[in-house]
Amino acid sequence: MDREQARRRLGIALDEARAGLREGGVPVGAALYGADGALLGRGRNRRVQDGDPSAHAETDAFRAAGRQRSYRGTTMVTTLSPCWYCSGLVRQFGISRVVVGEARTFRGGHDWLAEHGVEVVVLDDPACAALMREFIAARPDLWNEDIGHG
Amino acid sequence: MDREQARRRLGIALDEARAGLREGGVPVGAALYGADGALLGRGRNRRVQDGDPSAHAETDAFRAAGRQRSYRGTTMVTTLSPCWYCSGLVRQFGISRVVVGEARTFRGGHDWLAEHGVEVVVLDDPACAALMREFIAARPDLWNEDIGHG
Repeated sequence: MDREQARRRLGIALDEARAGLREGGVPVGAALYGADGALLGRGRNRRVQDGDPSAHAETDAFRAAGRQRSYRGTTMVTTLSPCWYCSGLVRQFGISRVVVGEARTFRGGHDWLAEHGVEVVVLDDPACAALMREFIAARPDLWNEDIGHG
Repeated sequence: MDREQARRRLGIALDEARAGLREGGVPVGAALYGADGALLGRGRNRRVQDGDPSAHAETDAFRAAGRQRSYRGTTMVTTLSPCWYCSGLVRQFGISRVVVGEARTFRGGHDWLAEHGVEVVVLDDPACAALMREFIAARPDLWNEDIGHG
């Protein structure tokens, strides 16, 4: 995937992250695209909104896409490097590609995914990084809870 | 954790798995226990029942336990070796211990977890193994979908 196409797809994930911030939640957003480029599902972290610690952005987008027979050729776009939980999701279900908005504020499992055959594009997007940097500074308690560093 | 205590805790996970089978679902069950031994949450695979591919047994039990500040000292009990998705959950959130009912019919990430400091107890329970063996023989399509081998 070229970076221009990856950047376009990041827009929806970033919209989700910003919606999460407005709701008082953890501002991480994601979108799952099919092999044909169609949007299958979009989502955001819902720990605060739904009191659901299992709803990370990537799993929320994956859930929104509903049951799929195969994830071959799909792309998970996320504003932030996927944690081990979300990296495990990508590996287990054979999602082919991951577009990472940024990995400066948190470095998850994207290198591990690349080692296991997933195509990984890290965009190092300034808007994604600013969003997280400001959130982590404002709510370190909530952020640590969200990544299990309580 | 001694194996006798682990076996007692497996009972609830197995009840969940059997409930899932009766509902026409994937018969995997789980339970999350606190450091003090209290049951924090129990759950089962809900792919069929809720049309939710993100609801593996372990994530369902984790969700049922609600928001927790820390998972230090907790134990995830599951009837089946946890897939990469559920293994990632355990690693990310720092769940201290995993009790695996059986790993004969499916070998997930429990060795990886042990390498990363999680205490892993594999019980090789005949009832858990029989449940999965019969399910996989009866519904290979559904099983393959559930582990992303579509």
